[in-house]
Amino acid sequence: MKIVVVGATGTIGKAVVNALQDRHEIVKVGKKGGDLQVDITDTDSIRALFKKAGRFDALVSTAGKVHFGELDKMTEKEFAVGLKDKLMGQVNLVLIGRDHMNDGGSFTLTAGVLSHDPIRYGASASLVNGALESFGRAAAIEMPRGIRINVVSPGVLVESLPVFGEYFRGHEPVPGARVANAYLKSVEGRMTGQVLTVL
Amino acid sequence: MKIVVVGATGTIGKAVVNALQDRHEIVKVGKKGGDLQVDITDTDSIRALFKKAGRFDALVSTAGKVHFGELDKMTEKEFAVGLKDKLMGQVNLVLIGRDHMNDGGSFTLTAGVLSHDPIRYGASASLVNGALESFGRAAAIEMPRGIRINVVSPGVLVESLPVFGEYFRGHEPVPGARVANAYLKSVEGRMTGQVLTVL
Repeated sequence: MKIVVVGATGTIGKAVVNALQDRHEIVKVGKKGGDLQVDITDTDSIRALFKKAGRFDALVSTAGKVHFGELDKMTEKEFAVGLKDKLMGQVNLVLIGRDHMNDGGSFTLTAGVLSHDPIRYGASASLVNGALESFGRAAAIEMPRGIRINVVSPGVLVESLPVFGEYFRGHEPVPGARVANAYLKSVEGRMTGQVLTVL
Repeated sequence: MKIVVVGATGTIGKAVVNALQDRHEIVKVGKKGGDLQVDITDTDSIRALFKKAGRFDALVSTAGKVHFGELDKMTEKEFAVGLKDKLMGQVNLVLIGRDHMNDGGSFTLTAGVLSHDPIRYGASASLVNGALESFGRAAAIEMPRGIRINVVSPGVLVESLPVFGEYFRGHEPVPGARVANAYLKSVEGRMTGQVLTVL
């Protein structure tokens, strides 16, 4: 399969590329690095990406930023970051990318455990992750040409503990290689409309 | 208690007002009708509302619009309607309203069954409802001064069947009076961070 991985240079993206690359042709997409670049907050940039990438069989997105901070100090401005980036960035990869995807292809997006297991400073991340999980369930029933869509919702990664560990005290960290397995299941399996929680 | 009900003139809002009004002082807020008016897509309008309403003990929101339509024909523009209206409209009622709420007060927002049980044409509604449910869970753990927040997530209402029935074939409709009970539980109980699903 030809698989476009958006966010290929990130922590989860690297683990996914690593797990897929022996059997598939991977187009690594980063914000700055990778084979091709995209700014997922800009639909023109997404359109340009798919023009360059050519037709493909699967798209994996492990990309997206949200604002972390005290809810007390957050206004709609801070929530707008996650809505535009991690949420609509990934939704737009689907809305625009579907026309460039081969029949029977698949989208796999990334949410996260905060949808159901909140942490302090994570209100925007929770909102965005919940939105993505429900979008995946709903979009699946309207996808054309046998195209599938699933959402991977991982816990905090072992590899991310040096940066995020203090915010996730008591959360059981999951190794990137185990999280990557969920993406494999989505891409190489036949499931659709599923939230693959990895805890 | 003094309870502000935003969306008081809608189907759910009327049922909630009906269930609360014998025991409480209700400030009915509508887009055009009611005691006070608000456009929840406009933060200035929300600020003006709370200035007029004065301090209160509970806010119930049953307000919010989303775009329903074929996913195939939807772009980010159609998703933006629900993000700005039902999602951030209700989130902004919390972010702005918290400073006008008495200690130990409560917010009760409205999501809906499509977060977990999607229908054709409902991708944006699903996304928004999932976002609201997760926001409620997360915001609860950061609320100041004993303020609580819950989200009611009802199935399609019996009263809405004449308009929405054809989209919800096979969904078990719930009477407005039963949905109103979930709001009562949130407002008069002590729970927080809960999604009250009414099916």
